[in-house]
Amino acid sequence: MKTLKIYKIGGGILDDSHLLSQFLMDFSLINSNKILVHGGGKGANQLLKKLNIIPQVIEGRRVTNLETLEVLISFYAGTTNKKVVVELQKFGCNALGLSGCDANSICGIQRPIKKIDFGYVGDLYFGCIEKKVLRLLLMNGIVPVFCPIIHDGQGNLLNTNADTIAGTLAQQLVDDFEEVELHFCFDKIGVLRNINDENSLIPIINKENFQSLISQNIIHSGMIPKLENAFLVIEKGVKKVFLQHAKNIKNNIHTRIE
Amino acid sequence: MKTLKIYKIGGGILDDSHLLSQFLMDFSLINSNKILVHGGGKGANQLLKKLNIIPQVIEGRRVTNLETLEVLISFYAGTTNKKVVVELQKFGCNALGLSGCDANSICGIQRPIKKIDFGYVGDLYFGCIEKKVLRLLLMNGIVPVFCPIIHDGQGNLLNTNADTIAGTLAQQLVDDFEEVELHFCFDKIGVLRNINDENSLIPIINKENFQSLISQNIIHSGMIPKLENAFLVIEKGVKKVFLQHAKNIKNNIHTRIE
Repeated sequence: MKTLKIYKIGGGILDDSHLLSQFLMDFSLINSNKILVHGGGKGANQLLKKLNIIPQVIEGRRVTNLETLEVLISFYAGTTNKKVVVELQKFGCNALGLSGCDANSICGIQRPIKKIDFGYVGDLYFGCIEKKVLRLLLMNGIVPVFCPIIHDGQGNLLNTNADTIAGTLAQQLVDDFEEVELHFCFDKIGVLRNINDENSLIPIINKENFQSLISQNIIHSGMIPKLENAFLVIEKGVKKVFLQHAKNIKNNIHTRIE
Repeated sequence: MKTLKIYKIGGGILDDSHLLSQFLMDFSLINSNKILVHGGGKGANQLLKKLNIIPQVIEGRRVTNLETLEVLISFYAGTTNKKVVVELQKFGCNALGLSGCDANSICGIQRPIKKIDFGYVGDLYFGCIEKKVLRLLLMNGIVPVFCPIIHDGQGNLLNTNADTIAGTLAQQLVDDFEEVELHFCFDKIGVLRNINDENSLIPIINKENFQSLISQNIIHSGMIPKLENAFLVIEKGVKKVFLQHAKNIKNNIHTRIE
């Protein structure tokens, strides 16, 4: 087993059927061990709204109560996961959709209640990935496609974050392959100095320029935890981490995190 | 690979959480190659109603339009499949949930339009089961759990019938095992002479007594196609087909079809 390439796609891709289709076609052509992790997209919120479930938010953060969890399971593990898998199959990629409970592939623990009870939200831990089953699938040409639902081994499903799943898979599988690559795909070509100028792509972000980019306010808000997560993954031995547009996985336009 | 035991559970079991839990515990203890196939239950109709989707029925038969299909995918492949898998994992059974698109496990064709257009309903055909992947999973102690959603290989998901999936799996896997058993589990102890008397169980139904039981009106309505399906499976070489209560899979109370 040589290289493993892990791709994560989020809402911006999933909500754009043309872009999603293009991405899945390109993904299916990648000639390497590969795993896809997907998030949710706007559909989950739309479905919650249709079902008159009012999002519970405490101190700006979403709380996953049982009612919300049920909807997220149906939407992530059902609707979205199967939409992605069936299209990959069309492109000749032998995808297999997984929630963490499937073959016990990803276990987690319910986030402990400190100040806020986040409800049915799962945190990952060292050893939470059932590497044996992933190796078995990959060795047999089967491509795992993960949705952000995991389980606790006690009969409970938990909602979690697709970025975290992708990062954790990369970290915990790093010793099983010669090289592990992690690609966070979204609807920008990478980190831009000027968000309105595609010519201002920052090709490399490392710990040296990271602080300076923050102090210049070039990197801010949601991008900070995303990059901190990437640095953490690199510390654990993952050599190649990229932020890139989902349309660019065949070429080298990206921000590389080092 | 010696024996393969295939179990099908329907709505009556899925809607009764106590009975479901008991069944899944018993199922997890079966020491044999095994596959579980589940149907839907009342939840799908309840969800359609909540979403104000009016069931389309032509000549008494349901039509699966795109809107309905979306809900069935979310409910069968998401909600129900993961509910079953997560509980089996709790009982130490290494279950893996599958729709037909997953690893291309079950392919089908959209039912041709004759008099009625049934919409996104799939029919199975000879060779529609990807036996290689099922053997791989079973050989590695992984227990496939199928929901009644399949795909056509062209990017479309299709709704189908769990009884048909279970029967087709049994037929097409019969040459890969020394023995294949098929268990249709429901909320009766088998076929009864008198539906109100559990002491009137008919232990064996074969082609000889089948017609006589029909003419006596002991077997009627929905039970007729169920038994005809069972006879078809037996003709294809499946030696043991049972109708039994989901609570009785550990013992020998059942109607055996021969």
